Amino acid sequence: MSALALGLLSAAQAQTAAPAVVVQRAVTEAEVVAAQQAWCQALVDISTAHAQGGQAAAKALAEKVIDSAYGYQYGAVLFKPTLTVNPQTFRTTRAGALAYFVGGDAAFPKDTGFALKGWTQCRAVNAGVLIAGQTATTMGKVHITGKDGKVTTVDKTWQFMKDDAGRLRIVLHHSSLEFAGS
Amino acid sequence: MSALALGLLSAAQAQTAAPAVVVQRAVTEAEVVAAQQAWCQALVDISTAHAQGGQAAAKALAEKVIDSAYGYQYGAVLFKPTLTVNPQTFRTTRAGALAYFVGGDAAFPKDTGFALKGWTQCRAVNAGVLIAGQTATTMGKVHITGKDGKVTTVDKTWQFMKDDAGRLRIVLHHSSLEFAGS
Amino acid sequence: MSALALGLLSAAQAQTAAPAVVVQRAVTEAEVVAAQQAWCQALVDISTAHAQGGQAAAKALAEKVIDSAYGYQYGAVLFKPTLTVNPQTFRTTRAGALAYFVGGDAAFPKDTGFALKGWTQCRAVNAGVLIAGQTATTMGKVHITGKDGKVTTVDKTWQFMKDDAGRLRIVLHHSSLEFAGS
Amino acid sequence: MSALALGLLSAAQAQTAAPAVVVQRAVTEAEVVAAQQAWCQALVDISTAHAQGGQAAAKALAEKVIDSAYGYQYGAVLFKPTLTVNPQTFRTTRAGALAYFVGGDAAFPKDTGFALKGWTQCRAVNAGVLIAGQTATTMGKVHITGKDGKVTTVDKTWQFMKDDAGRLRIVLHHSSLEFAGS
Repeated sequence: MSALALGLLSAAQAQTAAPAVVVQRAVTEAEVVAAQQAWCQALVDISTAHAQGGQAAAKALAEKVIDSAYGYQYGAVLFKPTLTVNPQTFRTTRAGALAYFVGGDAAFPKDTGFALKGWTQCRAVNAGVLIAGQTATTMGKVHITGKDGKVTTVDKTWQFMKDDAGRLRIVLHHSSLEFAGS
Repeated sequence: MSALALGLLSAAQAQTAAPAVVVQRAVTEAEVVAAQQAWCQALVDISTAHAQGGQAAAKALAEKVIDSAYGYQYGAVLFKPTLTVNPQTFRTTRAGALAYFVGGDAAFPKDTGFALKGWTQCRAVNAGVLIAGQTATTMGKVHITGKDGKVTTVDKTWQFMKDDAGRLRIVLHHSSLEFAGS
Repeated sequence: MSALALGLLSAAQAQTAAPAVVVQRAVTEAEVVAAQQAWCQALVDISTAHAQGGQAAAKALAEKVIDSAYGYQYGAVLFKPTLTVNPQTFRTTRAGALAYFVGGDAAFPKDTGFALKGWTQCRAVNAGVLIAGQTATTMGKVHITGKDGKVTTVDKTWQFMKDDAGRLRIVLHHSSLEFAGS
Repeated sequence: MSALALGLLSAAQAQTAAPAVVVQRAVTEAEVVAAQQAWCQALVDISTAHAQGGQAAAKALAEKVIDSAYGYQYGAVLFKPTLTVNPQTFRTTRAGALAYFVGGDAAFPKDTGFALKGWTQCRAVNAGVLIAGQTATTMGKVHITGKDGKVTTVDKTWQFMKDDAGRLRIVLHHSSLEFAGS
């Protein structure tokens, strides 16, 4: 940039009464990291609710988490949980997500409630983040610690979309056990 | 819409010499399905090249496929192949993707070449498709058939981004073996 | 595409019980045209409300239109109405938009109420439409007819964004009188 | 966020060898401001080229500017220059943009070359910036100074899109003289 252009810029800034209003609809990396931490914390919180208040308490909290952190109101969420089995692998509906997290739904008989397993810690370590418009996608490891201190690691992809209120919602979630080698 | 508005619309159409030029930068479902079929076909083609021309032929084709079908030119691709193991789970670089598909790279010693395994058929069955701006994300099963006729099924998430030329490129790819149950 | 690939596709379709659920967050041209017609109709409707019920009726309707058709809830709308003058050219707030359409706001003393001028018809003719993600931008002529049958033509740019409920909202609106030549 | 979550975060950061690779495809405000300054500088540069090398030199530079700063390669640009007249108001093609800037095209007989008018300074002052995915839209005043020191102010809307190489390109440009009042 030329010195002239720089001079014009500072002149413009000096003469402008009000700064430009900025509407930020793109997703930032900081928002993504915060949303991942919130998901991790919610997993631990549901486990704690279960230990203290039983399945009903865990379910009530899980519903609140799903409604605030996932994007089922857009029509569907592309959700492949870690431990689901064919032909109920994918949980594109809210009911399918809830059953996976807290069990107790006869329509999903193999679900025992992933969030009820006494998780005490959870942390996400991203390998990559792709910010593309009003969504961002992350890929990396998530390490979750059980009550016996054992750590389970999964490979996880999340896609977040900014909603009208500016909050990120999970619109895609693919979780899988690490491949152990053959 | 009122009858008046409809009348105005047809009047407008009658009076407009030239139709509006449309620049379509969003991704369509048809483009997504075509890109998935191209990926499947490329996998079979690399296997065929290997059977006919050996590793060198397979590698040359794989490089062409990666350069045309993936988006490494954007800086990185979020790629978690089906069979990679920690700490080389994620292949965010072109070299890591190439090693996974055709092996033969000392920097990735556990890679034996996934695309060299004699695949004869491949088809994708989507559970869901999310079109969000200039990208689209899919989740579903991919069934690949070996030369012995045995079918391997993986759970696969892809994110495609439209490039400047209007072609879709894979910018995220998470593949995992089905969970077998415990 | 090879015959093999086509055969695999129809096989996949035959074997898939449920079609993929599609979440469509990109904007389509049809949605854009409908939103433009709705804006035109609203302009005429506000004029009609004014003729029948006076400024109070027009204002009540204009508020409803702004809240449903514009995106002020995102923080601001980039709005340059046709007839505003410096230093109140831009109306990034809801109050500024309302004053422009129906007047009667001491904070915007030069506004006489653009929508109160007895408009009877309005139609948009696009020169171009750019669909880029969750927004679409249009540029073209808008022809509005007064009660004396005289047609006023303006050059208009609109940007629409799809909200959480899937409705388009105007997030940018630049309108200007045609340049008459020098 | 709980103290526990914060503790986990710092633990995660300590244990992660490599930071996440970030692919940033959204547009930032800083990129927008730089692109606006580049446009302003190009306008002055074309005027200077004209003064020093005549129309041929100005045209050669204008072509370079259009090819690097506009997005005609996407199929069309939604461009409403300040001083065009009906029925050639909109310049959706590269040829139409070039004619507007430097004239000399029999297909656009009213174009005298806007960029040849001896502009010496140019600065943009945004009223608002909307960042929505891989595009950003700005609205504000642009002040351009002629060789006699007189300043012309226009109301200008720009939409920028990030190309494959990460550069912003103008995909929409609506410029209009200020309304003088009636």
